[in-house]
Amino acid sequence: MNSTSFHPPVRTLMGPGPSDVNPRILEAMSRPTIGHLDPAFVGMMDDMKGLLRYAFQTEHELTMPVSAPGSAGMETCFVNLVEAGDKVVVCQNGVFGGRMKENVERCGATPVMVEDEWGRAVDCNKVEEALKANPDAKVLAFVHAETSTGALSDAKTLAEIAHAHDCLIIADCVTSLGGSPLKVSEWDLDAVYSGSQKCLSCTPGLSPVTFSERAVEVIRGRKSKVQSWFLDLNLVLGYWGGGGKRAYHHTAPINALYGLHEALVLLQEEGIEAAWQRHSFNHSALRAGIEAMGLSFVVDEADRLPQLNSVTIPDGVDDATVRARLLQEYSLEIGAGLGPMAGRIWRIGLMGFASNQRNVLLCLGALDAVLADMGAPTTAGVAVEAAMKVYAQG
Amino acid sequence: MNSTSFHPPVRTLMGPGPSDVNPRILEAMSRPTIGHLDPAFVGMMDDMKGLLRYAFQTEHELTMPVSAPGSAGMETCFVNLVEAGDKVVVCQNGVFGGRMKENVERCGATPVMVEDEWGRAVDCNKVEEALKANPDAKVLAFVHAETSTGALSDAKTLAEIAHAHDCLIIADCVTSLGGSPLKVSEWDLDAVYSGSQKCLSCTPGLSPVTFSERAVEVIRGRKSKVQSWFLDLNLVLGYWGGGGKRAYHHTAPINALYGLHEALVLLQEEGIEAAWQRHSFNHSALRAGIEAMGLSFVVDEADRLPQLNSVTIPDGVDDATVRARLLQEYSLEIGAGLGPMAGRIWRIGLMGFASNQRNVLLCLGALDAVLADMGAPTTAGVAVEAAMKVYAQG
Repeated sequence: MNSTSFHPPVRTLMGPGPSDVNPRILEAMSRPTIGHLDPAFVGMMDDMKGLLRYAFQTEHELTMPVSAPGSAGMETCFVNLVEAGDKVVVCQNGVFGGRMKENVERCGATPVMVEDEWGRAVDCNKVEEALKANPDAKVLAFVHAETSTGALSDAKTLAEIAHAHDCLIIADCVTSLGGSPLKVSEWDLDAVYSGSQKCLSCTPGLSPVTFSERAVEVIRGRKSKVQSWFLDLNLVLGYWGGGGKRAYHHTAPINALYGLHEALVLLQEEGIEAAWQRHSFNHSALRAGIEAMGLSFVVDEADRLPQLNSVTIPDGVDDATVRARLLQEYSLEIGAGLGPMAGRIWRIGLMGFASNQRNVLLCLGALDAVLADMGAPTTAGVAVEAAMKVYAQG
Repeated sequence: MNSTSFHPPVRTLMGPGPSDVNPRILEAMSRPTIGHLDPAFVGMMDDMKGLLRYAFQTEHELTMPVSAPGSAGMETCFVNLVEAGDKVVVCQNGVFGGRMKENVERCGATPVMVEDEWGRAVDCNKVEEALKANPDAKVLAFVHAETSTGALSDAKTLAEIAHAHDCLIIADCVTSLGGSPLKVSEWDLDAVYSGSQKCLSCTPGLSPVTFSERAVEVIRGRKSKVQSWFLDLNLVLGYWGGGGKRAYHHTAPINALYGLHEALVLLQEEGIEAAWQRHSFNHSALRAGIEAMGLSFVVDEADRLPQLNSVTIPDGVDDATVRARLLQEYSLEIGAGLGPMAGRIWRIGLMGFASNQRNVLLCLGALDAVLADMGAPTTAGVAVEAAMKVYAQG
């Protein structure tokens, strides 16, 4: 065996996440490790909770990062709120609704599926019908921003419908947090999870979550213990809970948390509305270029996330070849399709630090050149020009 | 709100973990983030699996880091190997045996407890009796290196006994990996979990695990789905499994994995026997100083871990005051006791990069000075001298 230090290539990350990480975040992660019960660290934890509340636009007391990736954030919401025998209405319009179904089943509960076409928003009327037909449902679960397609659903209306039927809300906001409007308290979302590596532009590995008082009461009133010791919020709160003494639960991922803290400071410095606006603006420029090339988007404009752009792969163009050439020749990563979308779409992320003019122009120029070189029916050279017109108008 | 970047103080970490992190690891963590399906990253993953096999001293194919702290590594072992209705013999001689019991119960299985005094090794005779009395037991679970007390148990003999009774082994090696002899294949341990932040001296947040072929067969033959989607090894292996295509499961914590890879390269450079020897040697020097001060160890020398030294707090000395003064005046962190040991012991870690002469002398000098200043019956000034004699003899 003869392993040596790993020196990664420098990439431009325009897939579905991780996105480009701000150098300030990488620097923060390399600061000296301190103990997870050190008073200085505990002070940072308190500050981070405030920053997370700002990012989520909420006053929910129970707002913190789970010490694991977004999938564990999803599981945290389900295992704490759902018990064996419960019924959960799950909206599926992409990969992550299917993962929610898996979570419900593994809690010993019954999922009732509301299916929509991939690439479309969740249909609120269908949800209303499902809740009427299932008056014993306890939770409505949906994906606010479907990372597998780039479709945005109407979280506010879905929450209103759910609460009118006395249901809790679990919302997947992995890709929306920091990238497009998300107002947890105003929309009255009960349990929300996200990820560090999307529009917060941090490295992957942490999952910010926030829970309403209504959700906390349900967790406190459980009949059975949470099936996961690691994700049991009753225990985690002994460490992350407000005030007083911090009890050891698990060892927090210190340096990863330094990174998330810095990412949240950056968001605060920019201002969340400004961040949403930036994501929207760079999407406009990308869109102009994509359309100038004759390519089309998977998601209708009204439901389209600016931070995750699903583009239909032109007939006769080989998905893997294009992505491999972008990676090899331009050190540019864009995302492949998942599940039934594999080979049919590309997912172009403009998330967080990666949502900028340089990346838009690099991606358009590279994609245009590769497609033209492969003989695809594009109009080589017009994409960057179209995008630049958007930037020139400001 | 007005948060700013967090700049941690520089500490010397001599508690139960996290331990001092080698600067090479911090630097590695700040390298550019790349995608979790990037060919360069996949190559690093393969290399890391080899390095982990070396650290665990095993050839087990299923050897990888779980994307979360050691507690999640523990849960990975239990939720994958244990099903509802199973019986598990759990040895408890400290905090972490109790956590194993919690895990067993949350799997819907029945724990049979074998209790030993905190600070003592697990009694192999009692285990033999428990297995004779419970011929239907499926798993024997024990803590190799009890982080709450510093007691080392005889993993080799426990595995022999378990296998003679047709039981699988789950072993907590969080504090032993890299610090004292651990030979997973030679001792035939079936499911082993550890942590990144102890004797590997990496930052906290990852949990290396390794599973025998026997364990993998049990996982493949399960009657029910694993209750955790995030920790289900059948799914995780689609990403971390050997050869061919890597399927997306969850987004790997890229930069944390850079850090673990560098930590493992450092271990390989030193050589694992040399690392064990270094931990043992620095313990000898610390012991000489501790004993010269008239203090005593909690654990008998035969069962004592060199990397985690539990010292009895002298009568009349206030635990919290001493630790607060060490932190404030010397920027030195040592650990408190947990559970029934709280206020009665200190836990002095000499783990990984923190196991060195400078730390031993700093800790002895600081503890000696603080105790003398508080009027404790120590012989101020002799501790460092006693340790230096050990270093002089080499």
